[in-house]
Amino acid sequence: MTALISDPKSASVAADVRRALEQRPATGDRLDEIARYALLSPGKLLRPLLLVASAEAVGGAREDVLPAALAVEYLHVASLVHDDIIDGDDLRRGRASVHARYGVADAIVTGDALILGLFGAVADCAAPDAAVVAAVRVLAQAGEDLCRGQVQEALLVPPGPGVPGSGLDAYLEMASLKTGALFRGACRAGALLGGGSAAQADVVTAFAEHAGLAFQMYDDLLPFLADPAVTGKPGTSDAANLRPTYPVLLAHREGTAAERRGVERALSGELRAEAAYETLREVLVSGGALELAVAGAREEAARATADLGVLPVTGAAGLLAAIADLAVNRDH
Amino acid sequence: MTALISDPKSASVAADVRRALEQRPATGDRLDEIARYALLSPGKLLRPLLLVASAEAVGGAREDVLPAALAVEYLHVASLVHDDIIDGDDLRRGRASVHARYGVADAIVTGDALILGLFGAVADCAAPDAAVVAAVRVLAQAGEDLCRGQVQEALLVPPGPGVPGSGLDAYLEMASLKTGALFRGACRAGALLGGGSAAQADVVTAFAEHAGLAFQMYDDLLPFLADPAVTGKPGTSDAANLRPTYPVLLAHREGTAAERRGVERALSGELRAEAAYETLREVLVSGGALELAVAGAREEAARATADLGVLPVTGAAGLLAAIADLAVNRDH
Repeated sequence: MTALISDPKSASVAADVRRALEQRPATGDRLDEIARYALLSPGKLLRPLLLVASAEAVGGAREDVLPAALAVEYLHVASLVHDDIIDGDDLRRGRASVHARYGVADAIVTGDALILGLFGAVADCAAPDAAVVAAVRVLAQAGEDLCRGQVQEALLVPPGPGVPGSGLDAYLEMASLKTGALFRGACRAGALLGGGSAAQADVVTAFAEHAGLAFQMYDDLLPFLADPAVTGKPGTSDAANLRPTYPVLLAHREGTAAERRGVERALSGELRAEAAYETLREVLVSGGALELAVAGAREEAARATADLGVLPVTGAAGLLAAIADLAVNRDH
Repeated sequence: MTALISDPKSASVAADVRRALEQRPATGDRLDEIARYALLSPGKLLRPLLLVASAEAVGGAREDVLPAALAVEYLHVASLVHDDIIDGDDLRRGRASVHARYGVADAIVTGDALILGLFGAVADCAAPDAAVVAAVRVLAQAGEDLCRGQVQEALLVPPGPGVPGSGLDAYLEMASLKTGALFRGACRAGALLGGGSAAQADVVTAFAEHAGLAFQMYDDLLPFLADPAVTGKPGTSDAANLRPTYPVLLAHREGTAAERRGVERALSGELRAEAAYETLREVLVSGGALELAVAGAREEAARATADLGVLPVTGAAGLLAAIADLAVNRDH
């Protein structure tokens, strides 16, 4: 999402967030070193951007909510660190994942420390105590929803030979929890800490609901669009884990009998990861499901921006709209 | 710690905490099922007891802080769930550990959800927002210290042949982080949520500092005192993980040359777990280090109770003293 960072407004927010991440007080011990490694990898800082833009869109000041912007990045990075352990992914953003570099034990504990630290960070915001308590509640709930989505994800049955699988609807419900939750939490916490009304908080929450789903839908497409060297993770990871993702489930639902069989074969566990990936890619590209999936993600992004016009600060509301737009127009 | 539960005051607190744990709103999904399994195992509920007793000792009402009492149990249980994964312990409190029963992936995620949920629970306390924010900060810091202790623990070098090891002081520093942190967090958060003054919060924090260390010191002795069928975990676990614990390090520092060699041999990795454990037990019992270690733990517990007399509610302060006393007079 280099395009996003070249937008002057988002670039300035991202620079502030990155500076704050780099300037976290160092304790110099091993936990600190590992947390730094995890946090300072070249990520998109999308969730901090969402939090700051939501706060500014309701009239809040960036510097007052910056600690909470770090907090949502802690939560996101913690979930990535633990996810990589669970999936056995040794690469993340083009370099060794935390457990590949520091071992599983310390990777588990570092993720825990980031989750704990996020609430300390929220408490550091310059906002009334009532708003801080509300934000704590929102982010705890968002995190729990994220966890619920992760557990649900593992329960989704791939459409195997003769097995219909859990289907697209169950998948999208899971994605709404797994990715949507933190988008919602970031935007809602931002609006509350920024002094927004309940109605304004609801507007950014609805935005986040759709934007999060759009982001996840498009994220699922990327392995079939982009070069793994660019995305920084192997395109075959989901296929290797036999994960039925959005475009794959769409192809299975909308495709011809032959395409359906191709999907089932790819997710059956009989093929090696590379062959499974190539089979899926062939079905998705030639059958047209990939194109359909892109259109679906962009419709969801358009839904996200529908009500942003009611927010008082149009520049920041425009940044939210730009984020939704760029979420479904990126190459990594 | 059956003796603790037979004390009428602590039994009544424990019953309230257990009822609140059982009455958590059920979502009925898999994450909920796993969290219930983890939380409802027959633990001592020591940290909730500490939180409630600290709140009551400064004049607070039990029902107002009960959600925070659950919160510290969430944090403790989350750390046990993740610890068991790290140590490969398939037994906990006499039954299958969470990862042994539900798999590593869901055990990691359930621990995360408990850590997140704890902050939602703190926000549910009937206390002024400022006290809730202060308690959030205290518990986030306590959790981070616990994580720091876990990472430090893995770095402690066992005293091997020709290697002095990290020694007793480094071990006790780690124990103060790993176990002491959550004792401190529970007591301090309880005093703050119970409406205590800063000075009163400092008194219970100092109590917790010593009581936590005493508890960990005595916990380290238990595998050499008690029957594994009673403690609910194999007595050989620390020996199998080549962990130099308090009595072992004491024997190494205070023992004869032969005893020192025995310890080094047991922790060298050359013996099978059972043989290593038996070697350590023999050294500790016959050399007198076990007796010395018991005395050390009890001195630490006595230090804990020294200043409790200044707290206004003597019944609850007495419960704190009883907890410290029973922490070093138990058989499991």
